[in-house]
Amino acid sequence: MNGIFITFEGGEGAGKTTVLQQIKDNLTAKGLPVVVTREPGGVYIAEQIREVILNPTHTKMDGRTEALLYAAARRQHLVEVVLPALQEGKIVLCDRFIDSSLAYQGYARGLGMEEVYKINEFAIETCMPSATFLFDIPPEEGLKRIQANDTREKNRLDLEKLSFHQHVAEAYDLLAKQFSERIQKVDALRPLTEVVADVEGRIEDLL
Amino acid sequence: MNGIFITFEGGEGAGKTTVLQQIKDNLTAKGLPVVVTREPGGVYIAEQIREVILNPTHTKMDGRTEALLYAAARRQHLVEVVLPALQEGKIVLCDRFIDSSLAYQGYARGLGMEEVYKINEFAIETCMPSATFLFDIPPEEGLKRIQANDTREKNRLDLEKLSFHQHVAEAYDLLAKQFSERIQKVDALRPLTEVVADVEGRIEDLL
Repeated sequence: MNGIFITFEGGEGAGKTTVLQQIKDNLTAKGLPVVVTREPGGVYIAEQIREVILNPTHTKMDGRTEALLYAAARRQHLVEVVLPALQEGKIVLCDRFIDSSLAYQGYARGLGMEEVYKINEFAIETCMPSATFLFDIPPEEGLKRIQANDTREKNRLDLEKLSFHQHVAEAYDLLAKQFSERIQKVDALRPLTEVVADVEGRIEDLL
Repeated sequence: MNGIFITFEGGEGAGKTTVLQQIKDNLTAKGLPVVVTREPGGVYIAEQIREVILNPTHTKMDGRTEALLYAAARRQHLVEVVLPALQEGKIVLCDRFIDSSLAYQGYARGLGMEEVYKINEFAIETCMPSATFLFDIPPEEGLKRIQANDTREKNRLDLEKLSFHQHVAEAYDLLAKQFSERIQKVDALRPLTEVVADVEGRIEDLL
């Protein structure tokens, strides 16, 4: 593996997606080989799995079935997108990865973070990110941003109650402590340009 | 849980399906509440997952993606079919369950039995079968039976090479040793009526 695998995590409205796009443009302009992706990432099999997860008629979907399906889609995206890019020596920036499953399904949905870790370990084997940037923002603030953003299509998670998002934030805090060598917090309350410059600098330090 | 959960395992052509049907008829005639099932068991979500697994255009399907999808379908079938029947006090006879994944994907496909066990443990939690009947037959004999049976629709596994089926048989032997309290071997080379009477008697002993 010649490339470097970096993931971006955080609650809703933390600004990950916007920041990632700008970082991609900046690093690409500097001649660096950057790939920005997020699951299912246009991978046909992973898209099919996502359709099963999100199909609104699947009201009987069990939480563990859902967690296994997410892990399956993750595996396929990893094999078809992330690993080939890393082998080509690229900088792979992935919007959400294993920590999202641990925080949302393991902790906030109550399946257990260790349990959800096990099936994701099976899915990703040794391919853990080299670094993870955790966009830190109080959940109330993140939700305010989402509500103020008319152009954002609200997804199922955006519509969860505040308490759910508080649980997600708690989970991310626990993960940041548990994986302190991998996870770096990013103060996402600052203006966009500051956050971009900060994260971009940290990525360049990693190279 | 008032019911009892019994699974049936073994290589192709061992006669499980035929024996199960006769046992069901016999036990039902004796007034016992028997449910015979096999994954995905008509469970809509599990059927959708199976379609993703079996879709012939999915040639890029990774082995671990497949194993996670099987575990997901297993979970949903368990939650929608097996657990409700057990709660109603029924005798649930299931044609293939966790040991099939361990033997076929864990061992014969080389993913590792312990690894595949972990994700299945997540899927089934504490709901291991009370007993498992392993239909024992030399792989060459099982394949001969399949080839002689014109009415059987050949599936993808029936068409694997003999060496693959020999690996499956080896895996089942290992499992029978490892889980010797749960797994009982059944000599499946005997005439059908003998096998049915034998297994039926052993099920009655378990009740």
